[in-house]
Amino acid sequence: MPTPASVGIDIGGTKLVAATLDGDGAPLERARVVTPATGTADELVRVLVDLVRQLGEGLPVGVGIAGIVDRDGVLRYGPNVAVRDLPLQARLADELGVDVLVRNDASVALYGEWARGAGRGVHDLVMLTLGTGVGGGVMLGGALVEGAHGLGGELGHIIVHDGGRRCPCGNLGCLEAYASGTAIARQATERLAEDPGDSVLAGRGTTLTGKDVTEAALAGDALAREVLEEAGRVLGVGVASLANALDPGRVVIGGGAGINAAEIILPVAREAARQRLMGRAHRPPLEVVLARLGDDAGMIGAGLLVRAGT
Amino acid sequence: MPTPASVGIDIGGTKLVAATLDGDGAPLERARVVTPATGTADELVRVLVDLVRQLGEGLPVGVGIAGIVDRDGVLRYGPNVAVRDLPLQARLADELGVDVLVRNDASVALYGEWARGAGRGVHDLVMLTLGTGVGGGVMLGGALVEGAHGLGGELGHIIVHDGGRRCPCGNLGCLEAYASGTAIARQATERLAEDPGDSVLAGRGTTLTGKDVTEAALAGDALAREVLEEAGRVLGVGVASLANALDPGRVVIGGGAGINAAEIILPVAREAARQRLMGRAHRPPLEVVLARLGDDAGMIGAGLLVRAGT
Repeated sequence: MPTPASVGIDIGGTKLVAATLDGDGAPLERARVVTPATGTADELVRVLVDLVRQLGEGLPVGVGIAGIVDRDGVLRYGPNVAVRDLPLQARLADELGVDVLVRNDASVALYGEWARGAGRGVHDLVMLTLGTGVGGGVMLGGALVEGAHGLGGELGHIIVHDGGRRCPCGNLGCLEAYASGTAIARQATERLAEDPGDSVLAGRGTTLTGKDVTEAALAGDALAREVLEEAGRVLGVGVASLANALDPGRVVIGGGAGINAAEIILPVAREAARQRLMGRAHRPPLEVVLARLGDDAGMIGAGLLVRAGT
Repeated sequence: MPTPASVGIDIGGTKLVAATLDGDGAPLERARVVTPATGTADELVRVLVDLVRQLGEGLPVGVGIAGIVDRDGVLRYGPNVAVRDLPLQARLADELGVDVLVRNDASVALYGEWARGAGRGVHDLVMLTLGTGVGGGVMLGGALVEGAHGLGGELGHIIVHDGGRRCPCGNLGCLEAYASGTAIARQATERLAEDPGDSVLAGRGTTLTGKDVTEAALAGDALAREVLEEAGRVLGVGVASLANALDPGRVVIGGGAGINAAEIILPVAREAARQRLMGRAHRPPLEVVLARLGDDAGMIGAGLLVRAGT
């Protein structure tokens, strides 16, 4: 039995997954609980402390969570939890007496994919996670981009269509407003209201999820497929925009919606990005690949990152 | 008289400026020639070699040039010169027998502004230069972003309006298609064709330049002012997009068009960016400031960068 070297935790919208990891980031013992979405700060800290004590007391702990997390591991705001301005990293370190690192979920997912997944060996890497929202991470020259305040990597909120669709963040035209699972469901709902044609989704109204749309598209539904292709096309616009700015060696697409719909979304995104790549005649083709670690990426990345001392 | 420590050169669209620089990057002896825009590779190399020999033989040489320059200082493509795939850095190093660094003009301008100008002390910095086109540079954690192939920083080609205006690069909706001097002139021409009203620019047709529009706006012309404000607003969209992705501590706006029109463009861009900054309630305000080194930024940055050994 390999020796556990750290605990990795990923706090998602509905579930909180955790595991002890060996020195290479391979998960050993796993645990999963419901995210205390509506709880107080004390309750969130209590759930995490109990989980770590159960899995591996004394090990360093890495945590990924959606939202705005600053360089000190203070959760300024998270869309999936009710707490604000919680110094989660400091609170956990106090309670557990170990090294703790708390960072944005997509940043740690990128780190996981870089260390053990689809980004291995590529030191200039962009990751986009398509889920309820669109998250992102950037690694340049082998270092995770944190930005001046630790808030870098909100790639779902690059603006790809000035004055376009309303994003949950309040802005118009963010990538997230076109390529998230939520956006896919909403777009299908709107299309169905206009003209359902012979779509199997007809009559589903506002109960649709991104997963429903993907399942219908993969089963051959034309309307659902068109919705996913449009999401893929706009994803490609965002990928090209990021590639023109940052020249990554590879772009990794992950997240539940991204992974489930990859068969349809990825080829369209690749082609849309290729057409928009600056100086494409004078540079190598851009690699746009699917994430490999699935739901484990954030947990693995967080557990490895705390040991890397970043 | 301080001792010259390097030669800095900036190859622009019409003029090629150069100077010897002291160890802190202050220009000592200056020179300026017409850019050999239509010449062969040999002619371009010859002009540069002669210029360096005249200014300071034996000193390390840094060169900035618009276009796609890879990590080895190969000019893959430049909009202002006729040559392609020219290993300019290697050719100059061979001829001169000194350290030579050739990089993209906006990247070296950012380095100059960081070292001696509007970006001093800020290690996460984005620069946008508004001129004939829109150039850009990114510094993160104190290191210039070069990307996987040295092509990072093409910030004029982030896509801010999917399906929007045609950019000279061929894509639709690039920032450059809205915020360059060329785009400003074109937009004014279109507005004048629709309804010149009492604009002083009426009848100028397609001979207008961005500078004409700026001068008219600064003199109180309403149509010209509206055109610049719209360019500033879209610039702000681009700034917000980059800030959401990279979380810079400061954004520097430079380039001829940017500097001349700053009085009108900058306040509008600041406000447009502020409104679109992700999690703006939970982070410090974004600084959007004017470049300080003017036309010297690229030359100074190039001369300092070659000595920094990057």
